[in-house]
Amino acid sequence: MKIAFVLYDQFTALDLVGPYEVIARWPGAEVHFVATGPDPVRADAGLVVSPSSTLDSLTAPDLVLVPGSGNPMPVLNDKALLAWVRHVSQHATWMASVCTGASIYATAGILAGRRATTHWAFRDVLASMDVNVCPGRVVFDEPFVSSAGVSAGIDLALALTGRVHGPTVAEAIQLVIEYDPQPPFDAGAPHKASNQVMRAAGTLLAAAASP
Amino acid sequence: MKIAFVLYDQFTALDLVGPYEVIARWPGAEVHFVATGPDPVRADAGLVVSPSSTLDSLTAPDLVLVPGSGNPMPVLNDKALLAWVRHVSQHATWMASVCTGASIYATAGILAGRRATTHWAFRDVLASMDVNVCPGRVVFDEPFVSSAGVSAGIDLALALTGRVHGPTVAEAIQLVIEYDPQPPFDAGAPHKASNQVMRAAGTLLAAAASP
Repeated sequence: MKIAFVLYDQFTALDLVGPYEVIARWPGAEVHFVATGPDPVRADAGLVVSPSSTLDSLTAPDLVLVPGSGNPMPVLNDKALLAWVRHVSQHATWMASVCTGASIYATAGILAGRRATTHWAFRDVLASMDVNVCPGRVVFDEPFVSSAGVSAGIDLALALTGRVHGPTVAEAIQLVIEYDPQPPFDAGAPHKASNQVMRAAGTLLAAAASP
Repeated sequence: MKIAFVLYDQFTALDLVGPYEVIARWPGAEVHFVATGPDPVRADAGLVVSPSSTLDSLTAPDLVLVPGSGNPMPVLNDKALLAWVRHVSQHATWMASVCTGASIYATAGILAGRRATTHWAFRDVLASMDVNVCPGRVVFDEPFVSSAGVSAGIDLALALTGRVHGPTVAEAIQLVIEYDPQPPFDAGAPHKASNQVMRAAGTLLAAAASP
């Protein structure tokens, strides 16, 4: 199975690396990191990752995964990437998105009327793009599967593993990456966060979106 | 605060990127990716990451984080890295390890008699290195803080954020990365996994360790 993890300038690294750590362990996984060009790509908090493929060299992936980034997203103006996404979606079995990455599919015109989820702070934006934004940490509307923000990509990848390879493989990978989460705080969703934490998170999101 | 994320050939990417996604959002964080040399480094499942610093150029980090890798670990023979770790530990406020990364500190001779945790499949190995291996997903023995396998680095980073910057900052970052985990399976620790899943995980771990 040919898997394309999409890289673009200012992507959020965990959106991609969480699912990668699960999906790269699939039996028969052929993992590619695809970008518009061959140069290394800088994530929004400084990690620099090298592509293994370009849009021209990777034409028929079975699974595509797009990470998100801070909002606004200059990637939504990348016409070459949007055309590639539109093209490969015609034959891919799975089109996955994490966090605000769903807006890449929406902007490419392939998510119209589809059910999807996204980062909690981006739900209104995605809804304005003719997407049926649904509650849920992971939402399937085949061939699309989308997750909530950043860390939710791990849950997406395990759910997708269950669909593609069955529960034993999914559970074995969960055990290998010791994904038995024990968050030391309980503010991972807006309804769990205090007003003070909501304000602090808003400040962080605004800072991340600055150039 | 000067933060050093250590890169080495065959490291496990999520061990590093999970904590990075939390810690890079700290107020005043100055993030570095340090490797023995300047060349890009390949993670164990194919991700290629570029260092921003070398051992010579980054000499006084306040926080060091070492990721793990599959076992056996050729990095334990990297005398330059071990000497650097030993040297910077004299002044760093925090020395963090994820997964099997604790064995880097143990091999460098700075973890003797200390309390630490590691990947469930590596506990006996770490215990044989004169480390007091403790239960727990995150274990503090200042200046050391260690986590269980791979995904546990996110819990480590949030716990450390709470210690360094207080609960409001930790909860705000948790909310920004929407870390409200909802694993679709419940086999993330050995006591939760069936015998069949344990066997499948053992096969995956053995495959990951192959060259």
